[in-house]
Amino acid sequence: MAKRIGILTSGGDCAGLNAVVRAAVLRARDGYGWTMIGIHNGTAGLLARPVEAEELDRRMTTSTVLRMGGTILGTTNKGDPFAYPMADGSRRDRSGEIIEGCRLLGLDALIGIGGDGSFAILRKLAQQGGIPFVGVPKTIDNDVAQTERAIGYATAVTTATEALDRLQPTAASHSRVMVLEVMGRDAGHIAIAAGIAGGADIVLIPEIPWRLDALKRKIDALKAEGRNFALVVVAEAVKTAEGHTVDADRGFGQRRLGGIGEYVGEQLAAATGAETRVTVLGHVQRGGMPGAEDRLLASAFGVHAVDLIAQGKFDRMVSWWNRDVIDMPLADVVNNAHVVDPAGPLVRTARGLGICLGD
Amino acid sequence: MAKRIGILTSGGDCAGLNAVVRAAVLRARDGYGWTMIGIHNGTAGLLARPVEAEELDRRMTTSTVLRMGGTILGTTNKGDPFAYPMADGSRRDRSGEIIEGCRLLGLDALIGIGGDGSFAILRKLAQQGGIPFVGVPKTIDNDVAQTERAIGYATAVTTATEALDRLQPTAASHSRVMVLEVMGRDAGHIAIAAGIAGGADIVLIPEIPWRLDALKRKIDALKAEGRNFALVVVAEAVKTAEGHTVDADRGFGQRRLGGIGEYVGEQLAAATGAETRVTVLGHVQRGGMPGAEDRLLASAFGVHAVDLIAQGKFDRMVSWWNRDVIDMPLADVVNNAHVVDPAGPLVRTARGLGICLGD
Amino acid sequence: MAKRIGILTSGGDCAGLNAVVRAAVLRARDGYGWTMIGIHNGTAGLLARPVEAEELDRRMTTSTVLRMGGTILGTTNKGDPFAYPMADGSRRDRSGEIIEGCRLLGLDALIGIGGDGSFAILRKLAQQGGIPFVGVPKTIDNDVAQTERAIGYATAVTTATEALDRLQPTAASHSRVMVLEVMGRDAGHIAIAAGIAGGADIVLIPEIPWRLDALKRKIDALKAEGRNFALVVVAEAVKTAEGHTVDADRGFGQRRLGGIGEYVGEQLAAATGAETRVTVLGHVQRGGMPGAEDRLLASAFGVHAVDLIAQGKFDRMVSWWNRDVIDMPLADVVNNAHVVDPAGPLVRTARGLGICLGD
Amino acid sequence: MAKRIGILTSGGDCAGLNAVVRAAVLRARDGYGWTMIGIHNGTAGLLARPVEAEELDRRMTTSTVLRMGGTILGTTNKGDPFAYPMADGSRRDRSGEIIEGCRLLGLDALIGIGGDGSFAILRKLAQQGGIPFVGVPKTIDNDVAQTERAIGYATAVTTATEALDRLQPTAASHSRVMVLEVMGRDAGHIAIAAGIAGGADIVLIPEIPWRLDALKRKIDALKAEGRNFALVVVAEAVKTAEGHTVDADRGFGQRRLGGIGEYVGEQLAAATGAETRVTVLGHVQRGGMPGAEDRLLASAFGVHAVDLIAQGKFDRMVSWWNRDVIDMPLADVVNNAHVVDPAGPLVRTARGLGICLGD
Repeated sequence: MAKRIGILTSGGDCAGLNAVVRAAVLRARDGYGWTMIGIHNGTAGLLARPVEAEELDRRMTTSTVLRMGGTILGTTNKGDPFAYPMADGSRRDRSGEIIEGCRLLGLDALIGIGGDGSFAILRKLAQQGGIPFVGVPKTIDNDVAQTERAIGYATAVTTATEALDRLQPTAASHSRVMVLEVMGRDAGHIAIAAGIAGGADIVLIPEIPWRLDALKRKIDALKAEGRNFALVVVAEAVKTAEGHTVDADRGFGQRRLGGIGEYVGEQLAAATGAETRVTVLGHVQRGGMPGAEDRLLASAFGVHAVDLIAQGKFDRMVSWWNRDVIDMPLADVVNNAHVVDPAGPLVRTARGLGICLGD
Repeated sequence: MAKRIGILTSGGDCAGLNAVVRAAVLRARDGYGWTMIGIHNGTAGLLARPVEAEELDRRMTTSTVLRMGGTILGTTNKGDPFAYPMADGSRRDRSGEIIEGCRLLGLDALIGIGGDGSFAILRKLAQQGGIPFVGVPKTIDNDVAQTERAIGYATAVTTATEALDRLQPTAASHSRVMVLEVMGRDAGHIAIAAGIAGGADIVLIPEIPWRLDALKRKIDALKAEGRNFALVVVAEAVKTAEGHTVDADRGFGQRRLGGIGEYVGEQLAAATGAETRVTVLGHVQRGGMPGAEDRLLASAFGVHAVDLIAQGKFDRMVSWWNRDVIDMPLADVVNNAHVVDPAGPLVRTARGLGICLGD
Repeated sequence: MAKRIGILTSGGDCAGLNAVVRAAVLRARDGYGWTMIGIHNGTAGLLARPVEAEELDRRMTTSTVLRMGGTILGTTNKGDPFAYPMADGSRRDRSGEIIEGCRLLGLDALIGIGGDGSFAILRKLAQQGGIPFVGVPKTIDNDVAQTERAIGYATAVTTATEALDRLQPTAASHSRVMVLEVMGRDAGHIAIAAGIAGGADIVLIPEIPWRLDALKRKIDALKAEGRNFALVVVAEAVKTAEGHTVDADRGFGQRRLGGIGEYVGEQLAAATGAETRVTVLGHVQRGGMPGAEDRLLASAFGVHAVDLIAQGKFDRMVSWWNRDVIDMPLADVVNNAHVVDPAGPLVRTARGLGICLGD
Repeated sequence: MAKRIGILTSGGDCAGLNAVVRAAVLRARDGYGWTMIGIHNGTAGLLARPVEAEELDRRMTTSTVLRMGGTILGTTNKGDPFAYPMADGSRRDRSGEIIEGCRLLGLDALIGIGGDGSFAILRKLAQQGGIPFVGVPKTIDNDVAQTERAIGYATAVTTATEALDRLQPTAASHSRVMVLEVMGRDAGHIAIAAGIAGGADIVLIPEIPWRLDALKRKIDALKAEGRNFALVVVAEAVKTAEGHTVDADRGFGQRRLGGIGEYVGEQLAAATGAETRVTVLGHVQRGGMPGAEDRLLASAFGVHAVDLIAQGKFDRMVSWWNRDVIDMPLADVVNNAHVVDPAGPLVRTARGLGICLGD
């Protein structure tokens, strides 16, 4: 029987979201004769009355949409619906309204594209409301468990690597230390992958606490071998060996913008005397046209998510594993972040290249 | 004890070769205190007298080298040394000269960066000469077995996808069918991956014989739904359902350049009446700056190859498998091409998107 | 009084056309309160009954449209309306139908984006029908007179230069001569500009007849100074010193695809013994996202074209001249191609760098 | 008679410097048989004893160097030699040492690649020391007078435009106002050119003081027409209508990093209630591979600079003017910055598109 499938994007945007939606629409419509409903602005569209959503037609399936960054459905990262922040400052459980929103749309199943935080919420909503749910992993941080890759990560690494490619010549021309702050709240995948790919000398990630004396030793060693510049990559959430972060301990600097990158730059300049400049890469890591790999992954995920619904397999997340598209129980995904393994291949490769990881 | 390690690149060049060499030099020199010898032009450098090679110093380890396409060691794909083509047209076994070349250089071990054809030859040379050998997989076609990815593939897919991104608007502006011929002698990975990522309507790969009537049906269906253009990707070695290829059966066209792409274009134009244009992507797929992923993979492979030598593990190939760098016996790699699986995720995704694969 | 302005794109597509249309819509609608009518497929839309056109609304003004390659209006380069090719093989003057098409749309003025060939036709139509007309120059060849730059040229040069950037490493890795055939039917601007920017050794343009012995001398000189590779750029319409072209004299090769590039490659290989490979860049030069310069130029042209209509200045072409947007009489543009000046700055620069121009 | 020509890069680095040096070396060596001496780190190399410089040989002429960002000669923007900052805090006239440095190198003439600030100093040195001098204009800000374009500008505009291309989708996905701070100390060319090319809604440049209420009106107007996001570009040195800048009046914020961009973002957020994010583009605007246009311009300038020396024309700057390479008296260049003309084509185009310029 013809089904009506809802699809939404949740949490921070990234490259490749539209490619998932396009693939799901093509598979659902041409493969199964189903109707796809695009929900606007994540769960916010299901909270609104009338519900904010639209039927996704052929216009959504062009190759132009495939190449577009961001999400044409819109997204939000405001508000856990189980403790929704109200205008008066209080918090309220609005989960019932969201579930009702799904019913108002007449949905037979829901596809949610998100990270592990979104999955925890969407799964709880699905269980409470009896909504058949399938998840598609996305996050520039690549910290979703049970999949080798999440959508948006490859493009973010490419963007950060290109920034290093641009900073290296100006660093060498002016004999400077260049610090690049990249995203990575819980996991340092972007920092370490781009650091290796972009030829960084020092990479600081949240998983490995850093000490200034280790950084100073590396800069001194580079000078001793005749290098006149250095490239440093810092993930936004790194902490010192004493457990300090810029956000947690405002004594570090009281700054909002460029917090940790600027802090590391100042410390390095003071300790080594090197002329130091800081660049905060920021939101350009999220936006932008998805690279070929993210488009391919997104297409594979979108098709497989619809196939799971056809097979009646729910409460699962599509996954890329060992050269194949498979699916995993969402129960194994939530509360199980995939951080950089301090004994894993990225760290071994970085150390093998002589990159200082701050310890 | 300080070792002398030779390293060479063999077969067609691709993006990321220099990143492997750089990583190996950094790991060997700074990690173990060893000397790295770069052999020029693949096995040709070992055939020459004096042997053509150079000690790889710090100059080889810059981030500039990391980003450079091609191979600064040079390469060649002329001549199986066990049946070397001589000037007089005869063939001669020159393997002994190559083994002697390694001895003249005083090599303790050899790292060869190549595809499965190169590995078959290099492994035979290593066994015959008692040379400890480690292989690093590279090939834009991604047809090396026992590794999820080989160096150069990701960048080639990106280049082919960018070509489709450029052909789509001009196809739509002029209501044309655009045919793009990409590389892929034994495996259609570039064609199908770029076809999915670039929004192709038809993708022909060597693994699936094609029939003109299937292509015609797809073009007619696109017209029927209001589409005024189509994108077609053709791997260079595709064959028809009757087993014909352009190279094998010169009756197809007697053309050297643009053989199969032009043939498919002509057939499509004749069968559908559509205005058709053909682009042969050619050597731009090989050259060019490696993308972030190829640089990361290459760095991981270069470090691990040197570590294998330190551990005394030989006759093995470094491999990317399930989110890790591991190593596999070369015996399982040679004569075991990794082609596109007609039931695998790429084909399933393509079919799920409604892409016509010619059957 | 509120006007209705028609806009169409004519001739081969290129990057930046949509940016002109967007700018014209923004200026006409928000600046003057006028209505813009987008005519489909060049003059073909005016020949069709009912006329094929649409009112261009806010959807046309997004920054997404600004970045899109091709033309969302569609275009055609079939058929001079004064001698239109009919199905029965005859030719008929259909200019009256096009003029009537403008009247059916109620147009007060017409903006045509095209090259000098299109301008000749559109100007004649405008004069015959009493239609106030303004032209906007576009052409990847940059051969429109009375303007320093036409839309699409800068992006095409970037694309051709990137191709050389990708061919250089593979040429050097394999010790090859790489020939790149680029577009340029009447003028060699793309070839010589990309040749200089991409580090070519030989550049052949239509404005300078070439001799094989000059090419051979250059290749020999490169070998003598130790270079193992060469980059050669060939514009599609070059001719030998004897006046031969591949198209004009089929004795050259009887090939349709890769005509002149392949011919030059074969001649070079035969004359020098060098391993030679040929790449025909083709339609990727037209398509693709416009670069910053083309988007800026297109925006300036679109605004100025509408301002000209407001000022009642017709039969003129907008123009970039000496760091400003101005306008020129169309009478001075048609039949007055801007070819590469053999004594001009591009040729002087190329010769100053030691690039062989074939003479 | 064979000459010895010195060449140096002065002031902030940018894309295309190496292409100038390469072109000058090729022209001087192959065209005239002269020797080129590359001086290290701008005038600092002439102050050092022994003088820091090297003969530039064939290695400097590869196409790899042509594509490299930064300057392989090194540069510095420390220290006016007529009032050189000494370690003890005093200032000393060290011009004599620099002139002596030129004599120690046996230079017959000097080519200096710089902006107007560097030209003022280098010209004074040349006059005082009797050194024949030719200038080549470079600056990402495009504020050098008497030339349509300076090296590095086109690439910087491309980089800033790409940043907007990446910020737009994430702005639209999250319904945000995105502020991008770009370079531009004295002139707003990058900001306004990238703002037009990247589809910005508001562009603030140093030449036009801004008022918050104008910005608020524009944001409100966008909301009223249904837009859920806005793109804002801010040049680093903009000032308010009251003459305040962030640097001049620390009351604005006391911030070093992200000064003006963050200030504008905070003000906008407070005035409009919009969710606002700020990105400071920083040094990625300087570094990176030069685009085709900068490489072409740099090549033309390098050749022409050497030709001027051959013709005995000194105290002049090479210039791009009206589709040609010419030269201008340096006297007309210094103290004559080329800022954005408030009645010029960039401003007219921006206003024609409805872009708010803050007034």
